[in-house]
Amino acid sequence: MRAGIPEHGRVPKYYAVKARLEALLDELGEGGTLPTERDLAARFEVSRETVRQALRDLLILGRLQRRGRGTVVAGPKLEQPLSLVSYTEGVRAQGRVPGRTLIALDRLPAGAALGAQLRIAATDLVWHLERVLLADDERVGLESTYVPVQRFPQLGGEFDPDSSFYGYVRDRLGVRLATAEEKIETVLATPREALLIGTPPALPMLLLHRVSYEPDGRPVERVRSLYRGDRFSFTTRLSTG
Amino acid sequence: MRAGIPEHGRVPKYYAVKARLEALLDELGEGGTLPTERDLAARFEVSRETVRQALRDLLILGRLQRRGRGTVVAGPKLEQPLSLVSYTEGVRAQGRVPGRTLIALDRLPAGAALGAQLRIAATDLVWHLERVLLADDERVGLESTYVPVQRFPQLGGEFDPDSSFYGYVRDRLGVRLATAEEKIETVLATPREALLIGTPPALPMLLLHRVSYEPDGRPVERVRSLYRGDRFSFTTRLSTG
Repeated sequence: MRAGIPEHGRVPKYYAVKARLEALLDELGEGGTLPTERDLAARFEVSRETVRQALRDLLILGRLQRRGRGTVVAGPKLEQPLSLVSYTEGVRAQGRVPGRTLIALDRLPAGAALGAQLRIAATDLVWHLERVLLADDERVGLESTYVPVQRFPQLGGEFDPDSSFYGYVRDRLGVRLATAEEKIETVLATPREALLIGTPPALPMLLLHRVSYEPDGRPVERVRSLYRGDRFSFTTRLSTG
Repeated sequence: MRAGIPEHGRVPKYYAVKARLEALLDELGEGGTLPTERDLAARFEVSRETVRQALRDLLILGRLQRRGRGTVVAGPKLEQPLSLVSYTEGVRAQGRVPGRTLIALDRLPAGAALGAQLRIAATDLVWHLERVLLADDERVGLESTYVPVQRFPQLGGEFDPDSSFYGYVRDRLGVRLATAEEKIETVLATPREALLIGTPPALPMLLLHRVSYEPDGRPVERVRSLYRGDRFSFTTRLSTG
């Protein structure tokens, strides 16, 4: 209601343009194509730089998406439940088609920090599985999974990197995940991450850190999942006691 | 490990500077004062603009904090559990001193969307309680709470806006919150929000939407909490069935 109106000082010009653009997006509806920057600048009687700044904000907020050379009105963000189901199952539950593209599957020494989290020695080997996450063929995130090689020796040969890792360990190895500790923060994409996910650089991302445990308390995996902040939100249900 | 190194193309210059700055921050330690932009530009043999871009990223990531005219190495982010305890209790549990500053306490008609969430008529009045959230006297967030006036008629006169709303409804009215639906996303601060929280404009924020319910399923409140992305992370423990 008072959003955007500082108590002291003026509303920046781009912010006023952004508010008018938002009304235009509502009119155009999902998938509607935006006029060019030049046309918008003429329509709002501001500089193209001001239009560009407003468009940049709306892109980051997930109201717009680049499509080819044009810009269209984006659909709502995906709402992913915070839960122990895999990315695959979570996206499918929302009627989208999940996918993954393998970036890397390496073996490397755990190192001190990761070793402590997985309760293995720093010199023990871990698999590092890095995949781009897709929803309806759109790149929406980047996930790194680290698991002890000793626990999953056949991963490199057996596992289909386009499939769900949770599905693999459950169906093939009978490993059940019982609990997980998760941390959520917002970060900027690094240049490499922006390139892999195909986002504008410096887009705010949601970063989830997870360590998952078997019923006996043994750590199974450490996961670092980076999701496009303009395409994802997370939901959870809280209850007392 | 490979963070920052695009598969194709070069590492942007500011990114290399950022990596060297991060090493410097580790040396300086929490609370250590950073050299000036001019000194850093000379040390790394780059332009001040390149230094500024790297510093901006580090500020957004929460590695740095402005203090007066200088810039110091920030402490770790606050880790707030996603739970039905109040902000006050959550911050206290981390050994910080919580505080709140009242911005507004108004009565207004709920409107259609909020009315539906609180299961009241669009024309029914709600209290809107807006407060800046503090941790150790630092402004870290902005919270808007909406509750039906009919359910809490005395709120305006009785409630101390510096205290916990959950404490008030529990101790004074015997209202117990049993469950809540929560959604987490990342957004940019609006100019007004940046002003109220005292952040650089366009800082990525964590935005939590919450609707809380009594044991009988009646909605009690709708809350919109905006936390500085550079100062906060959220944690949760997941478990299966």
